[in-house]
Amino acid sequence: MPAVDWNIFEIKAQMHQHYPRLRLDEDICRQNIGRMAGKAGENDLLFRPHFKTHQSLAVAEWFRAEGVTAITVSSLKMAEYFAAGGWDDLFIAFPVNILEMDSLNRLAGSVRLTISVESQYVADYIAQNIADPVAVSLKIDTGYHRTGLDPSDTEKISRILDTIDQSPKLSFRGFYTHSGNTYSAQNKGEIKQIFESSVAQLKRLREEFSDGHPDLILSTGDTPSCSVVDNFGPVNEIRPGNFVFYDLMQAGLGACQLSDVAVVLECPVLAKNSRRNELLIHGGAVHLSKETMNYQGENCFGLVVPLTRVGWGKPIENTLVTNLSQEHGIIRTDTNTFAGIRIGDTLGILPVHSCLTANLADQYYTKGGNEIPKMRS
Amino acid sequence: MPAVDWNIFEIKAQMHQHYPRLRLDEDICRQNIGRMAGKAGENDLLFRPHFKTHQSLAVAEWFRAEGVTAITVSSLKMAEYFAAGGWDDLFIAFPVNILEMDSLNRLAGSVRLTISVESQYVADYIAQNIADPVAVSLKIDTGYHRTGLDPSDTEKISRILDTIDQSPKLSFRGFYTHSGNTYSAQNKGEIKQIFESSVAQLKRLREEFSDGHPDLILSTGDTPSCSVVDNFGPVNEIRPGNFVFYDLMQAGLGACQLSDVAVVLECPVLAKNSRRNELLIHGGAVHLSKETMNYQGENCFGLVVPLTRVGWGKPIENTLVTNLSQEHGIIRTDTNTFAGIRIGDTLGILPVHSCLTANLADQYYTKGGNEIPKMRS
Repeated sequence: MPAVDWNIFEIKAQMHQHYPRLRLDEDICRQNIGRMAGKAGENDLLFRPHFKTHQSLAVAEWFRAEGVTAITVSSLKMAEYFAAGGWDDLFIAFPVNILEMDSLNRLAGSVRLTISVESQYVADYIAQNIADPVAVSLKIDTGYHRTGLDPSDTEKISRILDTIDQSPKLSFRGFYTHSGNTYSAQNKGEIKQIFESSVAQLKRLREEFSDGHPDLILSTGDTPSCSVVDNFGPVNEIRPGNFVFYDLMQAGLGACQLSDVAVVLECPVLAKNSRRNELLIHGGAVHLSKETMNYQGENCFGLVVPLTRVGWGKPIENTLVTNLSQEHGIIRTDTNTFAGIRIGDTLGILPVHSCLTANLADQYYTKGGNEIPKMRS
Repeated sequence: MPAVDWNIFEIKAQMHQHYPRLRLDEDICRQNIGRMAGKAGENDLLFRPHFKTHQSLAVAEWFRAEGVTAITVSSLKMAEYFAAGGWDDLFIAFPVNILEMDSLNRLAGSVRLTISVESQYVADYIAQNIADPVAVSLKIDTGYHRTGLDPSDTEKISRILDTIDQSPKLSFRGFYTHSGNTYSAQNKGEIKQIFESSVAQLKRLREEFSDGHPDLILSTGDTPSCSVVDNFGPVNEIRPGNFVFYDLMQAGLGACQLSDVAVVLECPVLAKNSRRNELLIHGGAVHLSKETMNYQGENCFGLVVPLTRVGWGKPIENTLVTNLSQEHGIIRTDTNTFAGIRIGDTLGILPVHSCLTANLADQYYTKGGNEIPKMRS
């Protein structure tokens, strides 16, 4: 233990709010939520949004206003945060860590919990160690090849289902996939193709296993698919997360318009370099992450928007974030724009990947300057 | 404001400690601190270590044990954190944000503060608005080309010095540089060359401006230079930060040995894919950042070490972190290693960039499992 025992709350009280700030446009955000909730409703889909992007009980209320009562999270820690805030139907769409069985049991005793399994070993372990009833979804790898069961290995899947069926505490909920490979798609058509292929594999699994499990749910999750697909076929549930804020990556994929992006990082201009037409901002890898994308042939860490009292405008032409270090960001622009921006101005940065940017924020700031708490705070 | 006012402390109390955990080896860390403090002492250098890497009042005490009383930080927020914890000689090696003058004045009223200036505009603004005495260091761009004054523009520098000299509250401390270009060096020889070039430029500035400022300090900061250089020539002060933990990037540069890396992320193995010899771990971009490096021709997000009760071993051969998403990490290994690792084991990940990894951690865990608080907590 450290020699000195500082009272962290006392120290926090002596720290003030500073730039950069992650600004959240509630209107855009609620539009994104409403649009996706509407789409789920029109298609008779269960809507179990992923809360890993916003990580905020306050933003969660905007989902509740659209009728959402069941949610997805990506860690046990996040499940505990939302459970403590009153959410009681949670799917942890992340493999169970058997080392955290005690925490899992505590949570299972207090909320309606669905967990993710993708191996016989973990199924056995949970069957032997779970204390309260939980539902189990099997993670299926439909092409992303990051994780999940091979859908063609029906023997293995069948044995895991036997384990679940024979456990008095476990109930099988269905099959779920995350088609993260849509993030590498070149256009909407490719996103739809990936979705079709993914769904076809889930459908075959339902045909194979529906006899003993007539009510099994097919669940799909990625924001690109959920944004561009109109006909969800045999899918019963969608779990998109990123759409709540969207970002440059999603706009690049055609999953949203730039005007749908609901967060920008407000960064002060600290210095100007006229020889390079570069602006130095406070806004670095500890605020935006090091996620990067190709933008018109260049490595881009964000686009730049003018901030207004009530929001922000369209991206400024010929202007992008070209480099980030821990706290510094570099914006390169053209001579005219350079001349019009002064030290002490603040600019908005549209993030490449809003999930990672939001994860790094202590809280959000609305138009009126109000603070919206989130998990990190 | 959000409709519901959750008590964040109440919610935190219902959240438990989870994997992954950032393990910190106090012995290695204290060795790194002792070695750099010793080097500074031998070379008659002021040692003003940068605390942006560890961001911890507890680790700061290990510096105090080596005689450190003056520190460097990279933001006003970080300055407030360390000031609240009892540090009273702080250099904010980051351009002043004139929008935060109130916070700066509050801080200047309570500690011995040095601030960074690199434009006439900001110098004028501070001269007019500062309430208490502060020292000013001028940031010089000696080749990194991220930020700082052009050292050949002595006219501009001279005018800024006049502004400082004429202000009753401001005192000129000296010139400082951050040779971040050493991070692109191919070997130790190149690091030394960059250092020599950087120092030669600072030395010329001293010759130019020492008449009116005989005690001006030349200060340099990057960990690669401070680690490999033996003769610091005209430099008076060093401000390295990363060396407290080091990381794969520094080892790749030759600035440290792999055995000097003082932090590893402890990650549970959640699933195994035998067709790809891949291990799925809990440990993603929200723990390690998306910083990447070339390792033996491959894109690498971390190397993998076996964990022991008291620390960790050498990197496991033919094994590296090949991909990260928000919470997931993928380790690719060889058939033999794959066979020997079980679901529920934990593995250590040596980070590519410890500054960003540490920034993402809530706290550190020592060998004995004790928690060491840091700024984020």
